[in-house]
Amino acid sequence: MSDTKPVIVTLTTDFGVGSRYVGAMKGALLSVNPRLTIVDISHSVPHQDIHQGAITLDEATPHFPAGTLHIAVIDPGVGTSRQILYAEFANQRYIAPNNGLLTCLADREEPGSIDPAIMRNVANEQLWSGHREAGVSLTFHGRDIMAPVAAQLSLGLDILELGPELNETDFVRIPLPEAVRVGQKIEGEVVEVDSFGNLITNITAEQLADVPRDESVRVRCDDHETIGIFNAYAEQPPMTLVAVVGSGDKLELAIVDDSAKIMLGVGVGTAVTVAW
Amino acid sequence: MSDTKPVIVTLTTDFGVGSRYVGAMKGALLSVNPRLTIVDISHSVPHQDIHQGAITLDEATPHFPAGTLHIAVIDPGVGTSRQILYAEFANQRYIAPNNGLLTCLADREEPGSIDPAIMRNVANEQLWSGHREAGVSLTFHGRDIMAPVAAQLSLGLDILELGPELNETDFVRIPLPEAVRVGQKIEGEVVEVDSFGNLITNITAEQLADVPRDESVRVRCDDHETIGIFNAYAEQPPMTLVAVVGSGDKLELAIVDDSAKIMLGVGVGTAVTVAW
Amino acid sequence: MSDTKPVIVTLTTDFGVGSRYVGAMKGALLSVNPRLTIVDISHSVPHQDIHQGAITLDEATPHFPAGTLHIAVIDPGVGTSRQILYAEFANQRYIAPNNGLLTCLADREEPGSIDPAIMRNVANEQLWSGHREAGVSLTFHGRDIMAPVAAQLSLGLDILELGPELNETDFVRIPLPEAVRVGQKIEGEVVEVDSFGNLITNITAEQLADVPRDESVRVRCDDHETIGIFNAYAEQPPMTLVAVVGSGDKLELAIVDDSAKIMLGVGVGTAVTVAW
Repeated sequence: MSDTKPVIVTLTTDFGVGSRYVGAMKGALLSVNPRLTIVDISHSVPHQDIHQGAITLDEATPHFPAGTLHIAVIDPGVGTSRQILYAEFANQRYIAPNNGLLTCLADREEPGSIDPAIMRNVANEQLWSGHREAGVSLTFHGRDIMAPVAAQLSLGLDILELGPELNETDFVRIPLPEAVRVGQKIEGEVVEVDSFGNLITNITAEQLADVPRDESVRVRCDDHETIGIFNAYAEQPPMTLVAVVGSGDKLELAIVDDSAKIMLGVGVGTAVTVAW
Repeated sequence: MSDTKPVIVTLTTDFGVGSRYVGAMKGALLSVNPRLTIVDISHSVPHQDIHQGAITLDEATPHFPAGTLHIAVIDPGVGTSRQILYAEFANQRYIAPNNGLLTCLADREEPGSIDPAIMRNVANEQLWSGHREAGVSLTFHGRDIMAPVAAQLSLGLDILELGPELNETDFVRIPLPEAVRVGQKIEGEVVEVDSFGNLITNITAEQLADVPRDESVRVRCDDHETIGIFNAYAEQPPMTLVAVVGSGDKLELAIVDDSAKIMLGVGVGTAVTVAW
Repeated sequence: MSDTKPVIVTLTTDFGVGSRYVGAMKGALLSVNPRLTIVDISHSVPHQDIHQGAITLDEATPHFPAGTLHIAVIDPGVGTSRQILYAEFANQRYIAPNNGLLTCLADREEPGSIDPAIMRNVANEQLWSGHREAGVSLTFHGRDIMAPVAAQLSLGLDILELGPELNETDFVRIPLPEAVRVGQKIEGEVVEVDSFGNLITNITAEQLADVPRDESVRVRCDDHETIGIFNAYAEQPPMTLVAVVGSGDKLELAIVDDSAKIMLGVGVGTAVTVAW
């Protein structure tokens, strides 16, 4: 074992920080493979918010080493007929309910490029953990299905064993708002608010590539406006509204040294426009 | 070292998420054994709440591999004459103040089955960390006693070195409310509220074994009532009060896609009855 | 690899618990060295609060094994000309913005004792992660500079490669209030409030060494007063204001089994005096 590359498993859930459900999942993982490296991405995804979960996975997981196993549990349909899927995107491996959580990651791929051999329905009950006499819990598939399956994959289980192929048409997507460019204007919206209160939009660095950064450009959010697009928050004085291209290559609005969310009283869904 | 099984140490405390006290304990553990795998179960146990700590340990720790060392620090009596104990239940190892934190775990055992050889008073000061010239801190035994002792155990220290045996009569228990069945009625109460706002009761799956699950059964919580017992939250429509047998084999009450705690305005201690 | 000592990297940030930015940093670390042991110290440092970050680092990091790499990201000046520094104090290694975060740790050293060879400006862009085509993000140096540099150090990178020496005069300090003794009185202040609501002051155990602990000593905080200095919280009855010498060898004020912060309505900066 000592020379093999360690296997990393990450967890992204809406269980809440400090939830004992996270501890139980870690126990279930380590019971199968005590050598795993487990990394928490976030347990603060808003409850049942598949959209925010999809963004979190899209922003955080591509930074991990190739082959990392990412488990995502934002799962309002747990215990119903919704599937659990295994998928691979950009050399990262995912186990998640088939409810749209992987939409952003799948949308990064070329259309039609998803190999059905590497998108499976995790339906092989032999791999599940019958922790209760009555079988797996119907309220906690994270502990009883996703964790033991991920741990078995970490030990070399062939993905062919997971269950049948899932076609791209079986793969559930959620609608995601996209920013639109019309002439010298880009219309987008706030899609995420980070813990600093920064407002992260769906306007991409790519869309802004030929947009001037100087005082000819105006960024509006609700009825607030700021002039220019900057590279760093601290290029403007404290308490100023500033537009920057953030670390995820999206336009974001921040109040320097304070919370734009609170100061502007806005949130996810608020319209943002860039005009020049 | 590379072929030995990794030793896992878990932490359950009321220090609060993000408390630097957690970081200090991890440093103290790793200073003795840098190869430890440290897992956070929860640092969000309500301050000084031994009852909630006992439930958390009971629900989360049995999922870990045999031999895992679990440290629990909910310790209002720190620095007084209360003992620190080492105990083993179901192949899991525990270090905790002797204040009732291990009550639920001990209650799972057969009466009289606890071997005093594996319940010790951690009184051997040679094993403590004299981090200060004046000796161990009297306000932080987690860092100065429990962490170094656990780390030494992980390196193979014999439990006979920890200190004298503790008899079962020395073992401190807290009173825990038990649900009672009278005829065709079970009377219990809410004993825990999870981060989703689900109300977890002390009514067990075992007590419900021969209770019908159909519309003949009524579950009351405070002055709210729901009909039937389900297996999954999503078997009922959003915003409905639903009773399910949860992942810890206890009856729980949930509002589908919302917080029962907030919607019903109830919490730990609220009476719950099942009648049919 | 299996016989080498594992390298531990700790993280202290103001990103907020559950921030996906923490996950991204861990991915960036593990992508360079998948064998790292990553430990979270705190992600709850108040946003942009360099002073609280400095205290957290000073209290938690000295407990780690020698050679541990500590990354600290409380970085309001990210993307501007502020430097990123590498420094060593008491056999611990640090990577942080040069903005005062390491003040407390540096102040523990003998004046003039800091070897400029082990304080470097992390300016060698070859070591940075050009995650974007445009180079490193100007809003997230934690992910794109500090994490990859730390991971490369963990693999044996020579600190001479990091960048030029930093003199002690280049090292940024923040002013820290010190308690003053005048006759039979010590005047200090609250410098930190922990998650229990305990008020931690800048009055040190050393300053209290010859101060009586009996009823002749009076501790004042705002317009509240308590008599005597104790060793453990539980030496006084519940709901009592008590002064103890805490686990960091500083005087602290606590309400037994409750929050002194809330009960007294005070916080960081409130004056505390000891008189006898």
